[in-house]
Amino acid sequence: MDKKKVAIIASKGTLDMAYPPLMIASTAVAMDMDCGIFFTFYGLNIVNKKKYANLKVAPLANPAMPMPVPNIVGALPGMTAVATSMMKGMMKKAGMPSIPELVNVCAESGVKLWPCQPTIIAMSIDPNDIIPEAADPCGAAVYLEYARDADVSLFI
Amino acid sequence: MDKKKVAIIASKGTLDMAYPPLMIASTAVAMDMDCGIFFTFYGLNIVNKKKYANLKVAPLANPAMPMPVPNIVGALPGMTAVATSMMKGMMKKAGMPSIPELVNVCAESGVKLWPCQPTIIAMSIDPNDIIPEAADPCGAAVYLEYARDADVSLFI
Amino acid sequence: MDKKKVAIIASKGTLDMAYPPLMIASTAVAMDMDCGIFFTFYGLNIVNKKKYANLKVAPLANPAMPMPVPNIVGALPGMTAVATSMMKGMMKKAGMPSIPELVNVCAESGVKLWPCQPTIIAMSIDPNDIIPEAADPCGAAVYLEYARDADVSLFI
Repeated sequence: MDKKKVAIIASKGTLDMAYPPLMIASTAVAMDMDCGIFFTFYGLNIVNKKKYANLKVAPLANPAMPMPVPNIVGALPGMTAVATSMMKGMMKKAGMPSIPELVNVCAESGVKLWPCQPTIIAMSIDPNDIIPEAADPCGAAVYLEYARDADVSLFI
Repeated sequence: MDKKKVAIIASKGTLDMAYPPLMIASTAVAMDMDCGIFFTFYGLNIVNKKKYANLKVAPLANPAMPMPVPNIVGALPGMTAVATSMMKGMMKKAGMPSIPELVNVCAESGVKLWPCQPTIIAMSIDPNDIIPEAADPCGAAVYLEYARDADVSLFI
Repeated sequence: MDKKKVAIIASKGTLDMAYPPLMIASTAVAMDMDCGIFFTFYGLNIVNKKKYANLKVAPLANPAMPMPVPNIVGALPGMTAVATSMMKGMMKKAGMPSIPELVNVCAESGVKLWPCQPTIIAMSIDPNDIIPEAADPCGAAVYLEYARDADVSLFI
Protein backbone atom coordinates (compact mmCIF):
# COMPACT_ATOMS: atom_id res chain seq x y z
CA MET A 1 0.00 0.00 0.00
CA ASP A 2 1.17 3.49 -0.74
CA LYS A 3 2.39 5.59 2.15
CA LYS A 4 0.03 8.21 3.53
CA LYS A 5 1.05 11.73 2.49
CA VAL A 6 1.06 15.11 4.25
CA ALA A 7 1.24 18.29 2.12
CA ILE A 8 2.09 21.47 4.04
CA ILE A 9 2.36 25.12 3.05
CA ALA A 10 4.49 27.19 5.45
CA SER A 11 3.72 30.90 4.96
CA LYS A 12 4.75 32.41 8.31
CA GLY A 13 8.27 33.28 9.38
CA THR A 14 7.86 34.08 13.05
CA LEU A 15 9.50 31.87 15.68
CA ASP A 16 6.18 30.54 17.00
CA MET A 17 4.64 29.72 13.62
CA ALA A 18 7.86 28.12 12.30
CA TYR A 19 7.38 25.22 14.72
CA PRO A 20 4.04 23.76 13.50
CA PRO A 21 5.10 22.85 9.92
CA LEU A 22 8.39 21.34 11.12
CA MET A 23 6.84 19.49 14.08
CA ILE A 24 4.04 18.06 11.97
CA ALA A 25 6.43 17.07 9.17
CA SER A 26 8.94 15.38 11.47
CA THR A 27 6.15 13.57 13.32
CA ALA A 28 4.62 12.45 10.02
CA VAL A 29 7.84 10.87 8.74
CA ALA A 30 8.38 9.24 12.15
CA MET A 31 4.95 7.65 11.63
CA ASP A 32 6.13 6.35 8.26
CA MET A 33 4.20 8.89 6.23
CA ASP A 34 5.52 10.91 3.30
CA CYS A 35 5.68 14.68 3.70
CA GLY A 36 6.43 17.81 1.66
CA ILE A 37 6.57 21.46 2.71
CA PHE A 38 6.16 24.41 0.32
CA PHE A 39 7.81 27.51 1.83
CA THR A 40 6.18 30.72 0.61
CA PHE A 41 6.04 34.36 1.67
CA TYR A 42 7.59 34.81 5.14
CA GLY A 43 7.80 31.03 5.50
CA LEU A 44 10.85 31.06 3.27
CA ASN A 45 12.81 32.37 6.28
CA ILE A 46 12.54 28.89 7.80
CA VAL A 47 14.91 27.44 5.20
CA ASN A 48 17.10 30.55 4.93
CA LYS A 49 20.51 29.84 6.47
CA LYS A 50 21.04 33.51 7.31
CA LYS A 51 17.73 33.79 9.12
CA TYR A 52 16.47 30.49 10.51
CA ALA A 53 18.49 30.61 13.72
CA ASN A 54 17.17 34.08 14.45
CA LEU A 55 13.44 33.96 13.84
CA LYS A 56 11.58 36.36 16.12
CA VAL A 57 8.19 36.82 17.70
CA ALA A 58 6.70 40.23 18.44
CA PRO A 59 4.92 40.85 21.74
CA LEU A 60 2.08 42.86 20.27
CA ALA A 61 -1.18 42.48 18.40
CA ASN A 62 -1.54 38.99 19.89
CA PRO A 63 -3.47 39.27 23.16
CA ALA A 64 -3.40 35.46 23.34
CA MET A 65 0.30 35.35 24.21
CA PRO A 66 1.16 33.54 27.45
CA MET A 67 2.32 36.77 29.09
CA PRO A 68 0.62 39.57 27.20
CA VAL A 69 1.94 43.08 27.67
CA PRO A 70 0.03 46.21 26.72
CA ASN A 71 0.55 46.92 23.02
CA ILE A 72 2.09 50.28 23.79
CA VAL A 73 4.73 48.48 25.83
CA GLY A 74 5.13 45.67 23.30
CA ALA A 75 5.94 48.26 20.64
CA LEU A 76 8.90 49.64 22.58
CA PRO A 77 12.39 48.98 21.21
CA GLY A 78 13.86 45.76 22.62
CA MET A 79 10.54 44.12 23.42
CA THR A 80 10.65 41.83 20.37
CA ALA A 81 14.01 40.56 21.64
CA VAL A 82 12.49 39.98 25.09
CA ALA A 83 9.49 38.09 23.70
CA THR A 84 11.71 36.03 21.39
CA SER A 85 13.99 35.08 24.24
CA MET A 86 11.00 34.07 26.39
CA MET A 87 9.57 31.96 23.58
CA LYS A 88 12.92 30.20 23.08
CA GLY A 89 13.01 29.42 26.80
CA MET A 90 9.48 28.01 26.66
CA MET A 91 10.26 25.75 23.71
CA LYS A 92 13.41 24.50 25.45
CA LYS A 93 11.41 23.74 28.59
CA ALA A 94 9.05 21.61 26.49
CA GLY A 95 12.03 19.68 25.13
CA MET A 96 11.71 21.19 21.66
CA PRO A 97 14.74 21.37 19.39
CA SER A 98 15.72 24.71 17.84
CA ILE A 99 14.41 25.64 14.38
CA PRO A 100 17.71 24.86 12.59
CA GLU A 101 17.82 21.48 14.36
CA LEU A 102 14.25 20.70 13.33
CA VAL A 103 14.91 21.76 9.73
CA ASN A 104 17.84 19.39 9.77
CA VAL A 105 15.74 16.53 11.12
CA CYS A 106 13.19 17.13 8.38
CA ALA A 107 15.80 17.34 5.63
CA GLU A 108 17.61 14.18 6.79
CA SER A 109 14.43 12.17 7.16
CA GLY A 110 13.35 12.85 3.60
CA VAL A 111 10.77 15.60 3.98
CA LYS A 112 10.52 17.33 0.62
CA LEU A 113 11.40 21.04 1.02
CA TRP A 114 10.17 23.33 -1.78
CA PRO A 115 11.08 27.04 -1.77
CA CYS A 116 8.58 29.27 -3.58
CA GLN A 117 10.14 30.77 -6.71
CA PRO A 118 7.93 33.91 -6.92
CA THR A 119 8.75 34.68 -3.27
CA ILE A 120 12.48 34.44 -4.00
CA ILE A 121 12.06 36.97 -6.81
CA ALA A 122 9.64 39.27 -4.96
CA MET A 123 11.74 39.42 -1.81
CA SER A 124 15.08 39.55 -3.68
CA ILE A 125 16.41 36.53 -1.79
CA ASP A 126 19.86 35.22 -2.66
CA PRO A 127 19.29 31.56 -3.66
CA ASN A 128 22.61 30.73 -1.99
CA ASP A 129 21.08 31.63 1.37
CA ILE A 130 18.57 28.80 1.05
CA ILE A 131 19.73 25.51 2.61
CA PRO A 132 20.94 23.00 -0.01
CA GLU A 133 18.17 20.52 0.84
CA ALA A 134 15.67 23.10 -0.46
CA ALA A 135 17.58 23.87 -3.62
CA ASP A 136 14.85 23.67 -6.23
CA PRO A 137 12.63 26.75 -6.37
CA CYS A 138 9.20 26.02 -7.74
CA GLY A 139 5.68 27.34 -8.00
CA ALA A 140 2.34 26.48 -6.48
CA ALA A 141 1.80 23.83 -9.19
CA VAL A 142 4.47 21.57 -7.65
CA TYR A 143 2.72 21.81 -4.30
CA LEU A 144 -0.70 21.10 -5.79
CA GLU A 145 0.57 18.14 -7.78
CA TYR A 146 1.75 16.59 -4.51
CA ALA A 147 -1.22 17.76 -2.42
CA ARG A 148 -3.95 16.45 -4.71
CA ASP A 149 -2.85 12.91 -3.98
CA ALA A 150 -2.08 13.58 -0.31
CA ASP A 151 -4.18 12.54 2.68
CA VAL A 152 -3.59 15.66 4.79
CA SER A 153 -3.14 19.22 3.49
CA LEU A 154 -2.42 22.19 5.74
CA PHE A 155 -1.81 25.90 5.16
CA ILE A 156 0.22 27.26 8.06
CA MET B 1 -20.37 3.61 5.05
CA ASP B 2 -17.97 5.33 7.39
CA LYS B 3 -18.75 8.87 8.41
CA LYS B 4 -16.82 11.68 6.73
CA LYS B 5 -14.16 13.15 9.04
CA VAL B 6 -12.88 16.67 9.66
CA ALA B 7 -9.48 17.11 11.38
CA ILE B 8 -8.76 20.60 12.67
CA ILE B 9 -5.74 22.22 14.32
CA ALA B 10 -6.59 25.36 16.33
CA SER B 11 -3.42 27.39 16.91
CA LYS B 12 -4.78 30.91 17.51
CA GLY B 13 -6.25 32.21 20.74
CA THR B 14 -7.71 35.54 19.71
CA LEU B 15 -11.46 36.08 19.86
CA ASP B 16 -11.86 36.28 16.08
CA MET B 17 -9.80 33.20 15.25
CA ALA B 18 -11.41 31.10 18.02
CA TYR B 19 -14.66 31.07 16.06
CA PRO B 20 -13.62 29.27 12.85
CA PRO B 21 -12.53 25.93 14.41
CA LEU B 22 -15.62 25.80 16.65
CA MET B 23 -18.06 26.90 13.91
CA ILE B 24 -16.65 24.41 11.42
CA ALA B 25 -16.63 21.59 13.99
CA SER B 26 -20.18 22.20 15.19
CA THR B 27 -21.42 22.49 11.60
CA ALA B 28 -19.62 19.28 10.65
CA VAL B 29 -21.23 17.21 13.41
CA ALA B 30 -24.62 18.75 12.56
CA MET B 31 -24.02 17.38 9.05
CA ASP B 32 -23.38 13.95 10.55
CA MET B 33 -19.63 14.08 10.09
CA ASP B 34 -17.01 13.15 12.67
CA CYS B 35 -14.70 15.90 13.91
CA GLY B 36 -11.62 16.34 16.08
CA ILE B 37 -9.76 19.52 17.10
CA PHE B 38 -6.14 19.62 18.27
CA PHE B 39 -5.54 22.75 20.36
CA THR B 40 -1.93 23.92 20.19
CA PHE B 41 0.02 27.10 20.94
CA TYR B 42 -2.36 30.00 21.66
CA GLY B 43 -5.29 27.83 20.56
CA LEU B 44 -5.15 26.09 23.92
CA ASN B 45 -6.84 29.19 25.38
CA ILE B 46 -10.04 28.10 23.65
CA VAL B 47 -10.45 25.15 26.01
CA ASN B 48 -9.01 26.91 29.07
CA LYS B 49 -11.79 27.56 31.60
CA LYS B 50 -9.96 30.57 33.04
CA LYS B 51 -9.52 32.19 29.63
CA TYR B 52 -12.12 31.13 27.09
CA ALA B 53 -14.77 33.62 28.18
CA ASN B 54 -12.28 36.46 27.89
CA LEU B 55 -10.51 35.97 24.59
CA LYS B 56 -9.48 39.29 23.08
CA VAL B 57 -8.74 40.85 19.73
CA ALA B 58 -6.21 43.64 19.24
CA PRO B 59 -7.03 46.60 17.00
CA LEU B 60 -3.61 46.82 15.42
CA ALA B 61 -1.47 45.20 12.77
CA ASN B 62 -4.63 44.09 10.96
CA PRO B 63 -5.61 46.80 8.47
CA ALA B 64 -8.40 44.47 7.29
CA MET B 65 -10.46 44.98 10.43
CA PRO B 66 -14.01 46.28 9.86
CA MET B 67 -13.21 49.58 11.57
CA PRO B 68 -9.47 49.99 11.33
CA VAL B 69 -7.84 52.60 13.52
CA PRO B 70 -4.32 53.95 13.00
CA ASN B 71 -1.83 51.56 14.62
CA ILE B 72 -0.57 54.30 16.88
CA VAL B 73 -4.10 54.65 18.25
CA GLY B 74 -4.70 50.90 18.34
CA ALA B 75 -1.63 50.54 20.55
CA LEU B 76 -3.03 52.85 23.22
CA PRO B 77 -4.06 51.32 26.54
CA GLY B 78 -7.72 50.29 26.53
CA MET B 79 -8.01 49.89 22.77
CA THR B 80 -7.82 46.08 22.90
CA ALA B 81 -10.81 46.16 25.26
CA VAL B 82 -12.67 48.45 22.84
CA ALA B 83 -11.96 46.22 19.83
CA THR B 84 -12.89 43.09 21.80
CA SER B 85 -16.16 44.59 22.89
CA MET B 86 -16.96 45.63 19.30
CA MET B 87 -16.17 42.15 18.01
CA LYS B 88 -18.43 40.57 20.65
CA GLY B 89 -21.24 42.91 19.57
CA MET B 90 -20.70 41.95 15.93
CA MET B 91 -20.84 38.22 16.65
CA LYS B 92 -23.99 38.67 18.72
CA LYS B 93 -25.59 40.61 15.87
CA ALA B 94 -24.89 37.69 13.55
CA GLY B 95 -26.60 35.35 16.01
CA MET B 96 -23.36 33.69 17.04
CA PRO B 97 -23.09 32.02 20.45
CA SER B 98 -20.23 32.98 22.77
CA ILE B 99 -16.99 30.97 22.71
CA PRO B 100 -17.80 29.04 25.93
CA GLU B 101 -21.24 28.21 24.52
CA LEU B 102 -19.73 26.99 21.26
CA VAL B 103 -17.11 24.92 23.09
CA ASN B 104 -19.95 23.35 25.03
CA VAL B 105 -21.89 22.57 21.85
CA CYS B 106 -18.81 20.91 20.38
CA ALA B 107 -18.08 18.91 23.54
CA GLU B 108 -21.67 17.72 23.90
CA SER B 109 -22.02 16.75 20.27
CA GLY B 110 -18.99 14.50 20.39
CA VAL B 111 -16.27 16.61 18.78
CA LYS B 112 -12.95 15.18 19.95
CA LEU B 113 -10.98 17.86 21.82
CA TRP B 114 -7.22 17.26 22.12
CA PRO B 115 -5.02 19.64 24.09
CA CYS B 116 -1.38 19.75 22.97
CA GLN B 117 0.91 18.33 25.65
CA PRO B 118 4.10 20.22 24.67
CA THR B 119 2.12 23.49 24.76
CA ILE B 120 0.90 22.71 28.27
CA ILE B 121 4.49 22.21 29.39
CA ALA B 122 5.95 25.15 27.44
CA MET B 123 3.33 27.62 28.62
CA SER B 124 3.19 26.22 32.20
CA ILE B 125 -0.56 25.67 31.99
CA ASP B 126 -2.32 24.11 34.96
CA PRO B 127 -4.05 20.99 33.52
CA ASN B 128 -6.94 21.65 35.90
CA ASP B 129 -7.71 24.82 33.95
CA ILE B 130 -8.49 22.79 30.83
CA ILE B 131 -12.16 21.83 30.47
CA PRO B 132 -12.82 18.19 31.43
CA GLU B 133 -13.94 17.28 27.90
CA ALA B 134 -10.39 17.99 26.74
CA ALA B 135 -8.71 16.07 29.52
CA ASP B 136 -6.18 14.00 27.61
CA PRO B 137 -3.07 15.92 26.59
CA CYS B 138 -1.39 14.46 23.54
CA GLY B 139 1.09 15.20 20.81
CA ALA B 140 0.92 15.85 17.08
CA ALA B 141 0.91 12.09 16.43
CA VAL B 142 -2.63 11.74 17.78
CA TYR B 143 -3.78 14.49 15.42
CA LEU B 144 -2.00 12.95 12.43
CA GLU B 145 -3.37 9.49 13.16
CA TYR B 146 -6.86 10.96 12.94
CA ALA B 147 -6.13 13.35 10.07
CA ARG B 148 -4.56 10.81 7.73
CA ASP B 149 -7.90 9.05 7.44
CA ALA B 150 -9.94 12.25 7.45
CA ASP B 151 -11.62 13.91 4.45
CA VAL B 152 -10.95 17.52 5.46
CA SER B 153 -7.89 18.82 7.30
CA LEU B 154 -7.47 22.45 8.34
CA PHE B 155 -4.80 24.41 10.23
CA ILE B 156 -6.40 27.46 11.78
CA MET C 1 -12.72 10.19 -13.78
CA ASP C 2 -13.91 13.04 -11.62
CA LYS C 3 -11.77 16.13 -11.46
CA LYS C 4 -9.60 16.63 -8.40
CA LYS C 5 -11.00 19.29 -6.09
CA VAL C 6 -9.45 22.03 -3.94
CA ALA C 7 -11.54 23.56 -1.12
CA ILE C 8 -10.17 26.82 0.33
CA ILE C 9 -11.26 29.06 3.19
CA ALA C 10 -9.94 32.65 2.91
CA SER C 11 -10.13 34.35 6.31
CA LYS C 12 -7.51 37.09 6.02
CA GLY C 13 -7.95 40.44 4.31
CA THR C 14 -4.45 41.83 4.26
CA LEU C 15 -2.66 42.36 0.95
CA ASP C 16 -0.09 39.62 1.58
CA MET C 17 -2.55 36.95 2.70
CA ALA C 18 -5.03 37.72 -0.11
CA TYR C 19 -2.57 36.27 -2.62
CA PRO C 20 -2.33 32.63 -1.44
CA PRO C 21 -6.01 31.65 -1.88
CA LEU C 22 -6.21 33.33 -5.29
CA MET C 23 -2.85 32.01 -6.51
CA ILE C 24 -3.64 28.46 -5.39
CA ALA C 25 -7.13 28.59 -6.90
CA SER C 26 -6.01 29.97 -10.26
CA THR C 27 -3.16 27.43 -10.42
CA ALA C 28 -5.55 24.61 -9.53
CA VAL C 29 -7.98 25.40 -12.35
CA ALA C 30 -5.06 25.82 -14.77
CA MET C 31 -4.13 22.24 -13.77
CA ASP C 32 -7.67 21.15 -14.64
CA MET C 33 -8.80 20.82 -11.05
CA ASP C 34 -12.05 22.12 -9.58
CA CYS C 35 -11.83 24.80 -6.90
CA GLY C 36 -14.04 26.70 -4.47
CA ILE C 37 -13.18 29.50 -2.03
CA PHE C 38 -15.26 30.38 1.04
CA PHE C 39 -14.59 34.00 2.06
CA THR C 40 -15.11 34.56 5.77
CA PHE C 41 -14.14 37.16 8.38
CA TYR C 42 -11.60 39.63 6.93
CA GLY C 43 -11.28 37.43 3.84
CA LEU C 44 -14.55 38.86 2.59
CA ASN C 45 -12.60 42.02 1.67
CA ILE C 46 -11.04 40.05 -1.19
CA VAL C 47 -14.34 39.94 -3.09
CA ASN C 48 -15.53 43.39 -1.95
CA LYS C 49 -15.48 45.78 -4.92
CA LYS C 50 -14.97 48.78 -2.64
CA LYS C 51 -12.00 47.24 -0.90
CA TYR C 52 -10.17 44.67 -2.99
CA ALA C 53 -8.04 47.16 -4.91
CA ASN C 54 -6.88 48.73 -1.66
CA LEU C 55 -5.95 45.87 0.63
CA LYS C 56 -3.16 46.84 2.99
CA VAL C 57 -0.36 45.29 5.00
CA ALA C 58 0.85 46.68 8.31
CA PRO C 59 4.57 46.90 9.03
CA LEU C 60 4.31 45.78 12.64
CA ALA C 61 3.92 42.67 14.75
CA ASN C 62 5.49 40.65 11.94
CA PRO C 63 9.26 40.52 12.51
CA ALA C 64 9.47 38.16 9.52
CA MET C 65 8.78 40.93 7.00
CA PRO C 66 11.44 41.37 4.29
CA MET C 67 12.41 44.79 5.66
CA PRO C 68 11.33 44.82 9.29
CA VAL C 69 11.16 48.16 11.05
CA PRO C 70 11.00 48.56 14.82
CA ASN C 71 7.39 48.21 15.97
CA ILE C 72 7.44 51.68 17.42
CA VAL C 73 8.26 53.01 13.94
CA GLY C 74 5.84 50.67 12.20
CA ALA C 75 3.05 52.05 14.35
CA LEU C 76 3.61 55.61 13.14
CA PRO C 77 0.96 57.16 10.89
CA GLY C 78 1.73 56.56 7.23
CA MET C 79 3.80 53.43 7.75
CA THR C 80 1.01 51.08 6.69
CA ALA C 81 0.86 52.99 3.39
CA VAL C 82 4.63 52.64 3.00
CA ALA C 83 4.59 48.89 3.70
CA THR C 84 1.63 48.38 1.38
CA SER C 85 3.33 50.25 -1.43
CA MET C 86 6.50 48.20 -0.94
CA MET C 87 4.55 44.95 -0.99
CA LYS C 88 2.78 45.98 -4.21
CA GLY C 89 6.16 46.72 -5.77
CA MET C 90 7.46 43.31 -4.71
CA MET C 91 4.49 41.46 -6.17
CA LYS C 92 4.84 43.37 -9.44
CA LYS C 93 8.53 42.49 -9.57
CA ALA C 94 7.60 38.80 -9.29
CA GLY C 95 5.18 39.20 -12.19
CA MET C 96 2.11 38.85 -10.00
CA PRO C 97 -1.18 40.37 -11.12
CA SER C 98 -3.04 42.72 -8.78
CA ILE C 99 -5.69 41.32 -6.43
CA PRO C 100 -8.64 42.54 -8.57
CA GLU C 101 -7.01 40.99 -11.63
CA LEU C 102 -6.51 37.68 -9.83
CA VAL C 103 -10.08 37.68 -8.54
CA ASN C 104 -11.19 38.20 -12.12
CA VAL C 105 -9.06 35.31 -13.37
CA CYS C 106 -10.57 33.06 -10.70
CA ALA C 107 -14.13 34.14 -11.43
CA GLU C 108 -13.74 33.72 -15.18
CA SER C 109 -12.10 30.33 -14.91
CA GLY C 110 -14.93 28.91 -12.87
CA VAL C 111 -13.60 29.01 -9.32
CA LYS C 112 -16.63 28.92 -7.02
CA LEU C 113 -16.66 32.04 -4.83
CA TRP C 114 -18.77 31.79 -1.66
CA PRO C 115 -19.19 34.83 0.63
CA CYS C 116 -19.89 33.97 4.28
CA GLN C 117 -23.40 35.05 5.25
CA PRO C 118 -22.76 35.47 9.02
CA THR C 119 -19.75 37.69 8.22
CA ILE C 120 -21.92 39.89 5.97
CA ILE C 121 -24.37 40.36 8.84
CA ALA C 122 -21.74 40.74 11.59
CA MET C 123 -19.70 43.29 9.67
CA SER C 124 -22.76 45.11 8.22
CA ILE C 125 -21.50 44.66 4.67
CA ASP C 126 -23.68 45.95 1.83
CA PRO C 127 -24.28 42.85 -0.38
CA ASN C 128 -24.09 45.15 -3.41
CA ASP C 129 -20.41 45.74 -2.63
CA ILE C 130 -19.64 42.05 -3.21
CA ILE C 131 -18.61 41.22 -6.79
CA PRO C 132 -21.46 39.62 -8.80
CA GLU C 133 -19.53 36.36 -9.23
CA ALA C 134 -19.78 35.87 -5.45
CA ALA C 135 -23.44 36.71 -5.24
CA ASP C 136 -24.75 33.86 -3.09
CA PRO C 137 -24.02 34.28 0.60
CA CYS C 138 -23.90 30.99 2.45
CA GLY C 139 -22.74 29.33 5.63
CA ALA C 140 -19.99 26.91 6.60
CA ALA C 141 -22.21 23.98 5.58
CA VAL C 142 -21.83 24.85 1.88
CA TYR C 143 -18.07 24.86 2.28
CA LEU C 144 -18.05 21.55 4.16
CA GLU C 145 -20.34 19.89 1.63
CA TYR C 146 -17.78 20.74 -1.04
CA ALA C 147 -14.71 20.09 1.10
CA ARG C 148 -15.68 16.63 2.30
CA ASP C 149 -15.39 15.32 -1.24
CA ALA C 150 -12.36 17.43 -2.11
CA ASP C 151 -8.76 16.26 -2.37
CA VAL C 152 -7.11 19.34 -0.88
CA SER C 153 -8.55 21.56 1.89
CA LEU C 154 -6.83 24.69 3.16
CA PHE C 155 -7.68 27.34 5.76
CA ILE C 156 -5.83 30.54 4.87
